[in-house]
Amino acid sequence: MSDPGMSATRFHALYERLRGQSPWGAADRRGALNHITPARLAAAAGEVRAGRTVTMAAPLASSAPDNPEPGARHMTRLPAEPSDVPGVSFAADQITMNVHGDVDSHIDALCHVSYEGALYNGVPAGVVTSRGAAELSIDDARNGIVGRGVLLDIPRLRGVGWLEPGEHVTAAELAAAERAQQTRVGPGDLLFVRLGHRRRRDEDGPWEVARSRAGLHPDTAEYLAERQVAALGCDSNSDTAPSLVDGVAFPMHVLAINALGLHLLDYLQFHDLVPACEAAGRWSFLCVIAPLRLPGGTGSPVNPIAIL
Amino acid sequence: MSDPGMSATRFHALYERLRGQSPWGAADRRGALNHITPARLAAAAGEVRAGRTVTMAAPLASSAPDNPEPGARHMTRLPAEPSDVPGVSFAADQITMNVHGDVDSHIDALCHVSYEGALYNGVPAGVVTSRGAAELSIDDARNGIVGRGVLLDIPRLRGVGWLEPGEHVTAAELAAAERAQQTRVGPGDLLFVRLGHRRRRDEDGPWEVARSRAGLHPDTAEYLAERQVAALGCDSNSDTAPSLVDGVAFPMHVLAINALGLHLLDYLQFHDLVPACEAAGRWSFLCVIAPLRLPGGTGSPVNPIAIL
Amino acid sequence: MSDPGMSATRFHALYERLRGQSPWGAADRRGALNHITPARLAAAAGEVRAGRTVTMAAPLASSAPDNPEPGARHMTRLPAEPSDVPGVSFAADQITMNVHGDVDSHIDALCHVSYEGALYNGVPAGVVTSRGAAELSIDDARNGIVGRGVLLDIPRLRGVGWLEPGEHVTAAELAAAERAQQTRVGPGDLLFVRLGHRRRRDEDGPWEVARSRAGLHPDTAEYLAERQVAALGCDSNSDTAPSLVDGVAFPMHVLAINALGLHLLDYLQFHDLVPACEAAGRWSFLCVIAPLRLPGGTGSPVNPIAIL
Amino acid sequence: MSDPGMSATRFHALYERLRGQSPWGAADRRGALNHITPARLAAAAGEVRAGRTVTMAAPLASSAPDNPEPGARHMTRLPAEPSDVPGVSFAADQITMNVHGDVDSHIDALCHVSYEGALYNGVPAGVVTSRGAAELSIDDARNGIVGRGVLLDIPRLRGVGWLEPGEHVTAAELAAAERAQQTRVGPGDLLFVRLGHRRRRDEDGPWEVARSRAGLHPDTAEYLAERQVAALGCDSNSDTAPSLVDGVAFPMHVLAINALGLHLLDYLQFHDLVPACEAAGRWSFLCVIAPLRLPGGTGSPVNPIAIL
Repeated sequence: MSDPGMSATRFHALYERLRGQSPWGAADRRGALNHITPARLAAAAGEVRAGRTVTMAAPLASSAPDNPEPGARHMTRLPAEPSDVPGVSFAADQITMNVHGDVDSHIDALCHVSYEGALYNGVPAGVVTSRGAAELSIDDARNGIVGRGVLLDIPRLRGVGWLEPGEHVTAAELAAAERAQQTRVGPGDLLFVRLGHRRRRDEDGPWEVARSRAGLHPDTAEYLAERQVAALGCDSNSDTAPSLVDGVAFPMHVLAINALGLHLLDYLQFHDLVPACEAAGRWSFLCVIAPLRLPGGTGSPVNPIAIL
Repeated sequence: MSDPGMSATRFHALYERLRGQSPWGAADRRGALNHITPARLAAAAGEVRAGRTVTMAAPLASSAPDNPEPGARHMTRLPAEPSDVPGVSFAADQITMNVHGDVDSHIDALCHVSYEGALYNGVPAGVVTSRGAAELSIDDARNGIVGRGVLLDIPRLRGVGWLEPGEHVTAAELAAAERAQQTRVGPGDLLFVRLGHRRRRDEDGPWEVARSRAGLHPDTAEYLAERQVAALGCDSNSDTAPSLVDGVAFPMHVLAINALGLHLLDYLQFHDLVPACEAAGRWSFLCVIAPLRLPGGTGSPVNPIAIL
Repeated sequence: MSDPGMSATRFHALYERLRGQSPWGAADRRGALNHITPARLAAAAGEVRAGRTVTMAAPLASSAPDNPEPGARHMTRLPAEPSDVPGVSFAADQITMNVHGDVDSHIDALCHVSYEGALYNGVPAGVVTSRGAAELSIDDARNGIVGRGVLLDIPRLRGVGWLEPGEHVTAAELAAAERAQQTRVGPGDLLFVRLGHRRRRDEDGPWEVARSRAGLHPDTAEYLAERQVAALGCDSNSDTAPSLVDGVAFPMHVLAINALGLHLLDYLQFHDLVPACEAAGRWSFLCVIAPLRLPGGTGSPVNPIAIL
Repeated sequence: MSDPGMSATRFHALYERLRGQSPWGAADRRGALNHITPARLAAAAGEVRAGRTVTMAAPLASSAPDNPEPGARHMTRLPAEPSDVPGVSFAADQITMNVHGDVDSHIDALCHVSYEGALYNGVPAGVVTSRGAAELSIDDARNGIVGRGVLLDIPRLRGVGWLEPGEHVTAAELAAAERAQQTRVGPGDLLFVRLGHRRRRDEDGPWEVARSRAGLHPDTAEYLAERQVAALGCDSNSDTAPSLVDGVAFPMHVLAINALGLHLLDYLQFHDLVPACEAAGRWSFLCVIAPLRLPGGTGSPVNPIAIL
């Protein structure tokens, strides 16, 4: 196979082409969420038949080679200790989490990625200060991201347990997965791509993901644009490491978030969803993503729910 | 009107009666979530018609008389500063939040309330240690709480802007609200009761909610049991302050969470949902609550989504 | 009495005059710490006679009108719970603190205050990024600030319990306190000025300090320069509120930290030190300030120790 | 050499013997700090001759194999951004730190270690709850720990760069170091033992210290008792890993903190102090340890200062 990488020049041209296609005007701040029309959303509810729900998030992770700054949950009250109020006692706790990182399931807001000094739709990077993002924060998705979800399972297509770190998925392979799974990704869909990242982590243990990670080839960004995908989730962070583009780390983050205005969902888990889809005999479902209300925030921990 | 309070003796008898009705056996850890059967959940999807979604959470609050230990969001990377990776830069942040408290929208897990040394279904309070809750943690709801949501709007019924702190709602008034709104709360429903708490806070400013707060009368717990409600949310924390029960602070927390196994949602906001319901001409909707995956956790910040 | 305030013009002239006096050159980053010569430090050890030590810090404060974002200490291990190591168990905890604020005792680094776009000695404000201060951070004081401490007690001079919020101390009054206490502030001394702020807080309860606070008159900055004081501590934050200077909040912070290069110590407590000085019959002592090693940090919580 | 380990039986006998020697009675909560009499403290000031100060703390560490839950410092205000007050702007930050751990320099309070259900002097482990330690917290050392410090440099004695992980120092070797350095540890001294741990970390990089660490042999506890040492610091945590005692992890923590009432200082750094001692031609100095005021706390990050 020839070199799968992409030159900086081609990357830049692709970026310009994709971002030039936006039909929503200079004031738009919702990006690809615009693909979720009321009609599409209402139709997505028709995916609910079995009356079953499945989490797509992984539990809060502890320290590991891919989690050097782990979140924490500390107890502040224990119910077996004397209570400070009459007749009842409480258990309570406090959480601390970095919103991004390489293990905990989270969503990236459109302010997360700056390329050539600008965020999505040309918003200057300087709108993000130490107080937070004055524009394009995760609170723009406060009403949730709800639509038809579709899961494409690449290891299933390849007949392997998982993609090895460094491997990537092309647009052609996404289309092949659609055919194999007898599904088709369409306008307003929330696309989830399973690479097996988390299964590898569960079975072989964590590794230094920042250096070596399976992901999507930058050419998939054209597929995302054509299909009018509204959001993209992955069990890695969608970006291959090392980068497939010379001089640009995280090209998928740039193309998806910054050029296309796609909210990205990173480090999801699909081992609950896959058997549920198999049992249901289909790979689509109603999907609800409910970010915390963090005005100014660059994203949020999330627990996306698939409803079949 | 006669004294609306409840004696400790009557409260205790009510507690015992309610908790004795559980049909799910000693090993049950899901409580009232059991009311959400697959058939009811699938039927709830039929509530989606307009293809519109609405948040029921309030934005992360800053310090105030009702928020003495506010959560925080701090930036860890600013995109306008030199990047540590090639060709792209990021905005990132970190959050710290107490899971409970009197402002931020959150869900209480079944481990949250201990009464007479035990949690829901007789689980000993000692299962909660400094590591977290070994049983009944919020991760038991990891697949989300999804069902038909119903909003009962008490200020609307009364023709007032809000209930004043200290006022309460009886079971009879919940039933009156159902009639006035031409809706009926049934098995597996997620019930939301609007007291106007947050509207008062927005208009008149925060006050010391811990001392003075509108809520539900303990007799509503019988209503919740009869109607087989699966979860209960409120724009206060459902409990009147001062307490209506002698010697027991938070009687609704005890009855709902501990006796009935109801997940409670505290300090929601309904000013987005009310006009959406009015526009739709009905007070029911598909509702999705997606707690973060916090194993051992006593609850989670949440953003419940109504889908109409 | 005539208006005690200072015009913006006079303030600016004072600022320029003071900052022009620095004898340490453009590369200096230690500021007034340069006044602590080895000889002066060695002489200060002669203050130790009684063999007694006294804290000048207050305990970590909880939420209050002057502490809207309180620090916290959460337990992470309890020794009465089963241990994860053989034969022994541990108590452990985690702390979270904002370094500055209006209650907890802390030290301000020289990077803390920017005036007209620059920090101390003309260092551009831009050296402080989301990663921290590349110059003038608190780690520049990593070897501690050790010298002769002198406490001037203004309420004692005035015969009052405390200065009321809004009141201020002039350079003339500092000199009067020296005479009354038969002491004299000299080169390299660490000067502590008691206003009674914390005693008022203890006796009458906390108030909104950000709006109303006793402090020093800007003319004391000339006194600090003449006497070659090496660091300045106060039981408020040294600055009067409302500000005595038109259009400049925190003029003492600007003059002391930014113009003179003085590390400022805010919200100390002196109710342990006053009786110790009375018992010793003198108001000077060896003083040791040991900031935590926080590279890039804007200051540190501290517990200054007086040794008599 | 014969097996250097200690049986559980011998360890337990040693523990009982040491703890039985306490002359301070059942109500004592200061432990070995009682050895610091006013006369000894005043005499220690005589160690100050050169007028030079040196830190014994290391900078806040980032994530590493020995630092799986690193502390953090986040900016909350940047001075180059628009200010929220007139005429001046500020840099400010927030810190989060686990008090213990295997890298950051800290002090252990007497509540830190429970052995056979009790803390120092038989205080029941249950005094430590989720609110903190009701007794024996670090705030008992609020007035600082001040006395004569003595540094014993074991790699210097052995002529090596550092002790390898797993190696240990006996009481005999401490005495040998005293002779070689022409110093003698006496009543009320703060003893610091350099193992070269931090130099190894700096030169060869961090490793999993929890599994493999140089430390002191449990027989040194008798030396500490005989010499009436008031506090003990080390560049590791004083305990060898793997443990030298069957079935008891951290035997030095048990003997020093729990039996002798010694505050332990862990993970100090001595590479600034060693050359300062060499330059001064002696290994003793005035030492000031100033824990933060954390009532209920199990310890504190610290920056011990040596004054020569």
